[in-house]
Amino acid sequence: MERTRFILDENEMPTSWYNIQADLPKPLPPALHPATGKPVTPDDLKPIFPMELIKQEVSRERWIEIPEEVQEVYKLWRPTPLFRAHRLEKALDTPAKIFYKYEGMSPPGSHKPNTAVAQAYYNKKEGIKRITTETGAGQWGSALSFAGACFGIEIKVYMVRASYDQKPYRRVMMETWGGKCVPSPSPDTKVGRAILEKDPNCPGSLGIAISEAIEDCMTCDDTHYALGSVLNHVLLHQTVIGQEAKKQMEMADAYPDIIIGCVGGGSNFAGMFLPFVKDKIEGKKPDLRIINVEPASCPTLTKGPYVYDFGDSAGLTPLLKMYTLGHDFIPPPVHAGGLRYHGMAPIICHLYNLGLVEAQSVHQLAAFEAGVKFARTEGIISAPEPNHAIKVLIDEALKCKESGEKKTILLAHSGHGHVDMAAYDAYLSGKLTDYAYPEQGIKEALRNLPRL
Amino acid sequence: MERTRFILDENEMPTSWYNIQADLPKPLPPALHPATGKPVTPDDLKPIFPMELIKQEVSRERWIEIPEEVQEVYKLWRPTPLFRAHRLEKALDTPAKIFYKYEGMSPPGSHKPNTAVAQAYYNKKEGIKRITTETGAGQWGSALSFAGACFGIEIKVYMVRASYDQKPYRRVMMETWGGKCVPSPSPDTKVGRAILEKDPNCPGSLGIAISEAIEDCMTCDDTHYALGSVLNHVLLHQTVIGQEAKKQMEMADAYPDIIIGCVGGGSNFAGMFLPFVKDKIEGKKPDLRIINVEPASCPTLTKGPYVYDFGDSAGLTPLLKMYTLGHDFIPPPVHAGGLRYHGMAPIICHLYNLGLVEAQSVHQLAAFEAGVKFARTEGIISAPEPNHAIKVLIDEALKCKESGEKKTILLAHSGHGHVDMAAYDAYLSGKLTDYAYPEQGIKEALRNLPRL
Repeated sequence: MERTRFILDENEMPTSWYNIQADLPKPLPPALHPATGKPVTPDDLKPIFPMELIKQEVSRERWIEIPEEVQEVYKLWRPTPLFRAHRLEKALDTPAKIFYKYEGMSPPGSHKPNTAVAQAYYNKKEGIKRITTETGAGQWGSALSFAGACFGIEIKVYMVRASYDQKPYRRVMMETWGGKCVPSPSPDTKVGRAILEKDPNCPGSLGIAISEAIEDCMTCDDTHYALGSVLNHVLLHQTVIGQEAKKQMEMADAYPDIIIGCVGGGSNFAGMFLPFVKDKIEGKKPDLRIINVEPASCPTLTKGPYVYDFGDSAGLTPLLKMYTLGHDFIPPPVHAGGLRYHGMAPIICHLYNLGLVEAQSVHQLAAFEAGVKFARTEGIISAPEPNHAIKVLIDEALKCKESGEKKTILLAHSGHGHVDMAAYDAYLSGKLTDYAYPEQGIKEALRNLPRL
Repeated sequence: MERTRFILDENEMPTSWYNIQADLPKPLPPALHPATGKPVTPDDLKPIFPMELIKQEVSRERWIEIPEEVQEVYKLWRPTPLFRAHRLEKALDTPAKIFYKYEGMSPPGSHKPNTAVAQAYYNKKEGIKRITTETGAGQWGSALSFAGACFGIEIKVYMVRASYDQKPYRRVMMETWGGKCVPSPSPDTKVGRAILEKDPNCPGSLGIAISEAIEDCMTCDDTHYALGSVLNHVLLHQTVIGQEAKKQMEMADAYPDIIIGCVGGGSNFAGMFLPFVKDKIEGKKPDLRIINVEPASCPTLTKGPYVYDFGDSAGLTPLLKMYTLGHDFIPPPVHAGGLRYHGMAPIICHLYNLGLVEAQSVHQLAAFEAGVKFARTEGIISAPEPNHAIKVLIDEALKCKESGEKKTILLAHSGHGHVDMAAYDAYLSGKLTDYAYPEQGIKEALRNLPRL
């Protein structure tokens, strides 16, 4: 029998994170202070992040040691398995070899705790007692609540009200781990109260939730703020995924020709491909294709300009050089909430700009069609986000069938869809729709780009 | 760093199921035909089960080979991990060594596919095109739908209407794997139509759902029926759990003093303990304690008599010698739907009667309190069923703290609670209640025991 799962022992788990900034052919454009237009300093960030994370954000060290306390928690679900998709290959009748690295076995069900645990640890070490954050669909809020439980830190999550009402399961997960979750806008902050006064039924937005979380952090003692994607230190923590996958591909005596993953802020997919892109930069695997998959209704890399923009909708963060649809662009309400982000991790944008990685966009219906095929062959019911990547995976496997090429394809699978079954229900009952390209919304948002 | 996870490679997965019937000190009382009072024959069961399963039901062979096609599917999630609960031990400040074997990483999230896949395979091999079944909360229906997708068999699930309406996520899971799920009573069967005519809003019951599934199976060509617990062949398939756990405990250089698990029909826990009870029977580990944990509101082993009773509420199955609360006893609506069964697997009952295993009952509130402690230390949010076992696990660990004994405790953890978050919400918001011992209901149901 051919092998299906490639499993590493826990003593083979990476002990350092890989920092791509050591190996970039050109350095990353710095984050800028919106008032001065000059690169942000550690002092600018000190009120909201612990110093260790601020250092990681700009470090050029190639390897950054994973603290033993963080490794101890990782061991609850890491190393994660790499699967050979025999059953999907057979169903597609493709000569391609398909592998997928699955992050859905973590307690919150996604890759998010890889960074949540690290962030909670560094905050704890600096004496922080409380962390505030925002969450959209709830993946990040639940991962941080889990991490808070691990280190005895209080977590306060501002959850976009529309999601808070529609997805009560994610809120209950946060509470089960001891996190506190309120619908945003909330009466707990000035920003929230002002909005509620005007519109008591305001459904909220990620922008408002970020503003509330930052205000809370700035006005409370011993409190910091945490972000679940986009920033360099977040991508750094996620590189455990790609490092493990590399070892596991070696066990399978294989190396990918194509790596595919979905991108919202980009942290899961970057965590997978950064250790591989190193080989491409060094000329060891020059023809390696790395495909970022985004939703057609939020096509940041495929349609946005490469400019400085705010990381959040409200304009409170430093300016980041990104492909962006404009910081106040509100994407259509696709079920893949984790992919509804106007910008993209600066590291991914830089690599895309240098031509080292590619991008494609996928419509919602095609993504779910692919997800159902995956569930019926490989068993796993995937979150709406990775379904987008599975669609491109299937496309590439079918191209191999046509050409007869035996390519090796590696998928970064970010997590399960157990709390997204309402989306599958909509798809299976024919109620799911695609959205037209939001041309007007993007045009308007791009008019509001910050001027430097 | 001490080890947290003990993982087997897929080539260490068991290749045979262990059949306790080869090693019982006294043979199991046979199932009886209700009309004749005589042991049922293979011919009696032929219309509803494939011959291979009927043979397994009465086999005395110690080892029964797992077909390669079944092993291939098992490899999507097996071998499952064994964890050392370092974080829980620390939180309890106990000298006990706590281990848990976790079945929540299967696609449907529980132990159920261990038998669903085997049953689907044997039916397929016999040319069966369609399988009917009933489901309460939906774990079994979704496991069988997944298994149907693996072998291309149509699955029809009659789901108790109350659950169908309250737990739509489980239904959508079944449909995602291609299963067909209808609320029971349904207009698809004579039984269902007759009930709906009297009461169009009937909330249904497991008894009605079984009747519908069996009628459907009896009246359709190429159709069989499948059961997810209780029967000998179901427990047999689950022994992959205990066989793996034994090897993993060896890796940890440990052997349990106490094994704990929850029991509804009993298949998950028996799957764990049967390979260990063999050692007890053979005198290798005479003081091994095996604790079956049941809900206080459905206390089959701890309060029921050991008599012949029907396996289903409607009285359609053969008579099984069981501890039972009476086949028409309707347990209070505790959230642990999988533990709401009037009887118990005959194999467990026989071992309990012989004094080889023990039983305890636990109230719902205490179970959730234990489950939340487990989530905040070990990360995993457990289903309501294993929370009952976790409560007894914590009790035993705290006894060790008092006495200073360094006992080794092994928990059979049957699955995650990702689709049970409504129950956690009720607990965390103080709305969950305990139920009084249903004395009157049990008294009445015991009056209706079949007369032989």
